[in-house]
Amino acid sequence: MTSAPSGYIHGYSEREIQRLVEQAAILEDILHSGTRFSPGELILEAGCGVGAQTAILRHRHPGARIVSMDFSAGSVAAAVQHADGGDFLVADVTSPPFKNESFDHIFICFVLEHIADPVEALKGLYPLLKPGGTVTLIEGDHEACVWFPWSEASATVWRAMIRVQQDLGHDPLIGRRLHSLLSGAGFDVESCEPRIVYGDAGAQKLLEGMVNQIIVPMTITARESALSAGYVEREEWNEGIADLERSGRLPQGSFFYSFFKAVGRRP
Amino acid sequence: MTSAPSGYIHGYSEREIQRLVEQAAILEDILHSGTRFSPGELILEAGCGVGAQTAILRHRHPGARIVSMDFSAGSVAAAVQHADGGDFLVADVTSPPFKNESFDHIFICFVLEHIADPVEALKGLYPLLKPGGTVTLIEGDHEACVWFPWSEASATVWRAMIRVQQDLGHDPLIGRRLHSLLSGAGFDVESCEPRIVYGDAGAQKLLEGMVNQIIVPMTITARESALSAGYVEREEWNEGIADLERSGRLPQGSFFYSFFKAVGRRP
Repeated sequence: MTSAPSGYIHGYSEREIQRLVEQAAILEDILHSGTRFSPGELILEAGCGVGAQTAILRHRHPGARIVSMDFSAGSVAAAVQHADGGDFLVADVTSPPFKNESFDHIFICFVLEHIADPVEALKGLYPLLKPGGTVTLIEGDHEACVWFPWSEASATVWRAMIRVQQDLGHDPLIGRRLHSLLSGAGFDVESCEPRIVYGDAGAQKLLEGMVNQIIVPMTITARESALSAGYVEREEWNEGIADLERSGRLPQGSFFYSFFKAVGRRP
Repeated sequence: MTSAPSGYIHGYSEREIQRLVEQAAILEDILHSGTRFSPGELILEAGCGVGAQTAILRHRHPGARIVSMDFSAGSVAAAVQHADGGDFLVADVTSPPFKNESFDHIFICFVLEHIADPVEALKGLYPLLKPGGTVTLIEGDHEACVWFPWSEASATVWRAMIRVQQDLGHDPLIGRRLHSLLSGAGFDVESCEPRIVYGDAGAQKLLEGMVNQIIVPMTITARESALSAGYVEREEWNEGIADLERSGRLPQGSFFYSFFKAVGRRP
């Protein structure tokens, strides 16, 4: 659930890119349903990271033209390699190099969490939209998250990851703020809603995928920082990660997480 | 989100009953949608409390016969007074006084959280169902809950309430366990899903109702126990409650909570 790793622990290793692509595939319907970009429309993907969402945008909206940008040259290089064509450029979301009223829609997924002042960023993107155009925001909220079996160690590990992200100036609890971010930037808020993912023995594949392809690998990216900061001891870390993994595998296991998705319109 | 207040702080004051009825009305569609009991069917409401859900069951399922029971004579008396007719009796969910295969369906809402061994309780109810009959479970999960603006004080108050409920042997985190409870009791799990309530400036009435008619009054029932146990100081308590209240009133406020609903079938 991180794509533009400013000051973050991600690399651009094949393994890390693979993780982000797998994550995007597991969550595709949950996050993208309801979004419709029409053939001929011009879409700005602001903060494309390694292109995990770009591929989904392109296959879900054939005929729409997607322009994807990211401030990280490394991410964009990986995105270009991963993508089968498409328009990519290296540019900062907070100073986008486009003329006003260029785009029909803007799509921003797992990006605002990394930006110090997301309202300012949205204000900067606002004039790029044609009047009547929309911006779609998708973000997570790491506290809207429960699992079973619960353990003190797994909760400590999860909280430690949140603190590590906060120490870096990111906001892993941004999901609950999407409505206020949009209205603060002058958009009319068309919709703002939780998008939940929940798995248990009745949806074992989703449970296993969510926990062991998304949650555990994402948590592990925070390990060294969490240990250095003293938020958790190594032994408890290992125990907590093992407990999290088990919640994705046991027949009685369950995992619940809520993303948030909001659409604002430029009047 | 509490109905059978064993060892709990609820009274049967008019104000408390009013709170539970208002809560039920705000959440009616979120919790009851998808449930259909047919005319002529016999339904056991196991743990009716003061009858807040009973009234909803009766108006949503005209023609179905609802038999409501609760172990607390005080609750049942309040339920009878509140209800316009209907069948009520005082009996414990863990030792129900009915013949086997009596009921078409069993409905259990905000009850298992109060029971020391919910799987045993479900096993005890199982034989009361006709073969092919269903049990519907609805419970909350107090950790699947986030709000904005967040504050340390409001988080401390919320955690203190959870600990108070746990100290009493209740499980305010039971929502995530519904699938495993049903399968552990021998039911075929037909469905198990989060039922979310989310309010922000785009749904100000729901936000205000959820926070200031449900969450804050429910939290306040734990105040004296939380203070006595030393989980929070009085000053921080007052600050945290005020912060929670504000999250329900401010234009940038938001509140998210997930209930869980599951249906099991007796094969």
